[in-house]
Amino acid sequence: MTDIAFQDYYPDNVSQCYGCGRLNEHGLQIKSYWDGDETICHFRPKPYHTAIPGYVYGGLIASLIDCHATGTAAAAAYRAENRAMDTEPPLRFVTASLHVDYQRPTPIDAVLEVRGLVKELKGRKVIVAVTLSAHGEICARGEVVCVRMPEEFGRRAGE
Amino acid sequence: MTDIAFQDYYPDNVSQCYGCGRLNEHGLQIKSYWDGDETICHFRPKPYHTAIPGYVYGGLIASLIDCHATGTAAAAAYRAENRAMDTEPPLRFVTASLHVDYQRPTPIDAVLEVRGLVKELKGRKVIVAVTLSAHGEICARGEVVCVRMPEEFGRRAGE
Repeated sequence: MTDIAFQDYYPDNVSQCYGCGRLNEHGLQIKSYWDGDETICHFRPKPYHTAIPGYVYGGLIASLIDCHATGTAAAAAYRAENRAMDTEPPLRFVTASLHVDYQRPTPIDAVLEVRGLVKELKGRKVIVAVTLSAHGEICARGEVVCVRMPEEFGRRAGE
Repeated sequence: MTDIAFQDYYPDNVSQCYGCGRLNEHGLQIKSYWDGDETICHFRPKPYHTAIPGYVYGGLIASLIDCHATGTAAAAAYRAENRAMDTEPPLRFVTASLHVDYQRPTPIDAVLEVRGLVKELKGRKVIVAVTLSAHGEICARGEVVCVRMPEEFGRRAGE
């Protein structure tokens, strides 16, 4: 794992996302990192992120999978070009489609581990497979199709 | 449309969900209703529900589709039995899988309209197709496979 999260490389104008923007004070502010060829993110749900008492609501799980995947797509696109994530031109991604299979209830009293693996990186499209685990057990599996944004998004102000 | 939302029929012990629980003070508290053979839910995003500035983040869209679908599944299951939603035994649903296609950016300065249509209702499983629109244009389409919970969930306290 490197020290700086993918999301901490994003310039201010794309750092407002509720799921992953470091400047969204109300948001989840997830942090994603490389872990070998996979990417990893840890997140501790708040008590109010509940579905039925004791378990995490599905929308949070979908949000974590989604935002970790778009971060993974960006990181993988830079890695494929042998560039650091703060170099130009910017490579930022949005979600074209999201699929989540909820395999078992996700306990809320856990640090959730979200892992991403790039299945395909081709042109402007990156497909990321994601698992979400609690206490060492996979609770949900996702697949996210990410599409690269036009370059005007993610360019640093003044550049 | 009827006056009482599906979620307002849920007994207290299943009304904590961040997405749809009327007792979750931090949550979205969505309200879903019948509109003919479809179901409908309106939701105005908060300014901080942003992705890139001006648009709604995908996790909120997934959350709205998910919770509106499980509410729709419950309502449809009661309707299929010609029962009111506050009668026993309880019919409550969780999400087995969620698929969302993001078709265009969803503007944040709109009341979002979420519509559900039951595609299949068979045994313990209900499949709900969902659209999410803003300013009259469909921005996302979802399909949610909902599975009925064991009856101990959703039974009123003391019964």
